[in-house]
Amino acid sequence: MSDLRERLVAAVGAPHVLGGGSVPDLAHDEALAVAHGTPAFVVRPASTAEVAAIVTAARETHTPLVARGAGTGLSGGANAPDGSVVVAFDRMTAIRTIDTTDHVAVVEPGVSLAQLDAAAREHGLTYPVRPGEQSASLGGTVATNAGGMHAVRYGVTRAHVVGLEAALADGSVVRTGGRIAKVSSGYDLTQLLTGSEGTLALVTEVTVRLQPYLPVHRTVLAPFPDLTTTTAAVARVVGSGLAPALCEYLDDPTMDAICAAAHLTLGVPDEVRDDAEAYLLVELVGRREERVEEDLTELGMLLSEHGALDVYALPDGSARRLVAAREQTFWTIKARGADEIVDVVVPRSALPEFLTRARAAGDRHGSRVLGCGHLGDGNAHLAVFQPDAAARHATLHEVLAAGVALGGAVSGEHGVGRAKADALAELGDPGALTAVRRIRAALDPDGLLNPGCGPI
Amino acid sequence: MSDLRERLVAAVGAPHVLGGGSVPDLAHDEALAVAHGTPAFVVRPASTAEVAAIVTAARETHTPLVARGAGTGLSGGANAPDGSVVVAFDRMTAIRTIDTTDHVAVVEPGVSLAQLDAAAREHGLTYPVRPGEQSASLGGTVATNAGGMHAVRYGVTRAHVVGLEAALADGSVVRTGGRIAKVSSGYDLTQLLTGSEGTLALVTEVTVRLQPYLPVHRTVLAPFPDLTTTTAAVARVVGSGLAPALCEYLDDPTMDAICAAAHLTLGVPDEVRDDAEAYLLVELVGRREERVEEDLTELGMLLSEHGALDVYALPDGSARRLVAAREQTFWTIKARGADEIVDVVVPRSALPEFLTRARAAGDRHGSRVLGCGHLGDGNAHLAVFQPDAAARHATLHEVLAAGVALGGAVSGEHGVGRAKADALAELGDPGALTAVRRIRAALDPDGLLNPGCGPI
Repeated sequence: MSDLRERLVAAVGAPHVLGGGSVPDLAHDEALAVAHGTPAFVVRPASTAEVAAIVTAARETHTPLVARGAGTGLSGGANAPDGSVVVAFDRMTAIRTIDTTDHVAVVEPGVSLAQLDAAAREHGLTYPVRPGEQSASLGGTVATNAGGMHAVRYGVTRAHVVGLEAALADGSVVRTGGRIAKVSSGYDLTQLLTGSEGTLALVTEVTVRLQPYLPVHRTVLAPFPDLTTTTAAVARVVGSGLAPALCEYLDDPTMDAICAAAHLTLGVPDEVRDDAEAYLLVELVGRREERVEEDLTELGMLLSEHGALDVYALPDGSARRLVAAREQTFWTIKARGADEIVDVVVPRSALPEFLTRARAAGDRHGSRVLGCGHLGDGNAHLAVFQPDAAARHATLHEVLAAGVALGGAVSGEHGVGRAKADALAELGDPGALTAVRRIRAALDPDGLLNPGCGPI
Repeated sequence: MSDLRERLVAAVGAPHVLGGGSVPDLAHDEALAVAHGTPAFVVRPASTAEVAAIVTAARETHTPLVARGAGTGLSGGANAPDGSVVVAFDRMTAIRTIDTTDHVAVVEPGVSLAQLDAAAREHGLTYPVRPGEQSASLGGTVATNAGGMHAVRYGVTRAHVVGLEAALADGSVVRTGGRIAKVSSGYDLTQLLTGSEGTLALVTEVTVRLQPYLPVHRTVLAPFPDLTTTTAAVARVVGSGLAPALCEYLDDPTMDAICAAAHLTLGVPDEVRDDAEAYLLVELVGRREERVEEDLTELGMLLSEHGALDVYALPDGSARRLVAAREQTFWTIKARGADEIVDVVVPRSALPEFLTRARAAGDRHGSRVLGCGHLGDGNAHLAVFQPDAAARHATLHEVLAAGVALGGAVSGEHGVGRAKADALAELGDPGALTAVRRIRAALDPDGLLNPGCGPI
């Protein structure tokens, strides 16, 4: 251990090697029900060379490494095993380039989404990934392939990442992709590393595309009698070419909870609320006000024709507050005592059936299951209220199994982490899992990168 | 050999096992200057199970396999080594599903782009990948991660592929992704296989997203004094949010050649042509005619402000013919005696400098270098006229090295194939190449999937 400490001190300097027990908040992310241990050390590198030196020190001492961004993950991907070294990227927070000609940004992994987007906005550009927590780091969102509300229009993180620099398990530093819009020059390691949750490499630099910022935003809220009707309407919205920037559903209890938490009154009459089981929130964006207004009218007609109980064009302030409240759902639900939250993706058309099965699973085990999600993407976020660990586990397992049975996957955007490693191993395609394990063993033969996380 | 033939006959039936020497056209793709051998057999499976049986037969007899779609590739990725087995997918041409609710298509790998797009269009949808050859197969375009003119708006093939079924080298069949919009559930094998050029698996089914078809198209042609000015203007167009559906440049000789080949007269006055070194072709698309017209006016002003010698809104018929002629550039240039064509991607802003260096490389070796490309993506397609193999090779090598030195890659969308395997090995990031080789060895330990192609 003292040998490890000496090597880490040589790598990053003594002030940046912290005893693992001294900073317990850095030993885990925001996952509600995933255990973590006590790392031996937390180290804070300031450069790629220091990251590579840390990896080499870990390899030579056979010490597991866990990469940590802002710690906003929800699957325990940054939960440290006992005796591991946590590599915290909070000193690598420089935006190296905002390129307004090639429309890319080059950033260190500790840069936050808020920081990057603010820098891009100064140039009329935006980094549109909105996983709900703008303090999330670029490195962390690359690790989990974070999605969020804007994915229905702009795609998830992997749609934006065009280049990476990363330290592999052998201590070598690789560069993949670049400031280029496309590439077909050997396997796409940029894409392989994106979503690999720190199990194949530690990302030391990220190059992402930036999008033109569209200044006009309009939001409608539409109550629906049930989610089946809502889902059918959303298929028409997405197919229309209106290209919404978000397309969210919330069940009635979740809508109540976030409105109460945000002190929001939406002006939906009681008689409509009584009939509404699901709420749809759609945002349109554009370059010109008159076009977005015109599209909004078209959207309203489309929703009314397809079963909306009513359609409310939200005033700008209310819309912003409702979207912000929706982004904060995790915290709201956590404050209300949810014991676990779970992210499952299914084919969009299967979402109502999935939620029916998820609620039935809850009923079987005495668990309350409610939620909201990215309906445009078929991505549900469920809160499970069940303090008993065994009953909760049984509920979650049946919920995940239902998603996979309907053609979905155990996570749409939070990642596997440690929360779903067992579920993936049980429910994933066996051949694909074998291939994934071979790849992991080929790049990390000693199994030192985030052991216990992801595909195991 | 007779043992191999028996196994192949058992796998696909005698009528579908052809002697390799009997169908020489099936032993290579359209690459102009890449050698190929004589395969032992060409087999034509009709199902996933037959593909898996072929892989098993090959593994047991230690026979190399080369997957073949429509044979429209340009890098020799489908060029068969002596004694190999070519797996031709021309019997797997079924469109299994066009899903108008989830907006995905599920197809067999032999389905052509034209076939899929026509089927999607019947439902108001489109598959927007346009690599220039609509007879290309879905399997082939997944293998090369094909790009094309629409990539500037819609992205390359990997932006559209959401699920695959594939036979791995051990004969197992895996399913990756699905009819889902997003996933973060272990390494993204869908993305790893896309662009892997038949070296990791044989794809047996492809699931792609479909987009709403936008009915209104308007095209402008703008001559520019030089490519530096054109490139700067394109950065403004892309940054404006006008979201062009294509953004192509053509140098003056290439414009001449394709207009002559297509019997097109564009009505550009001689005095403008005399001053024009580069032509920019931009297409805008949308849902409403009045908006696209309005955007066209804005586009014209933007181009004029940024150095266009003039801006011509092309009548619909001329625009279609010019775009079609641009798509046929490869055949036009081939007919004019080009000895090689080369696809290089660089950061968009570096394209003028890249072309200056490419022409200088040509001058050093007495080669004529001209071309066109996807300027919105920084992706150049160059024709090299140089009958002497050594001088041509030297020219190409310097052209590729110039692209990599400017932050680009040896191929933006054609793939490495056999044409650029050596160049990639020499010019690629060494650490990334090592990782790629480890992955390849992990999934194909006997090296039977398309040996000699791709990263070697």
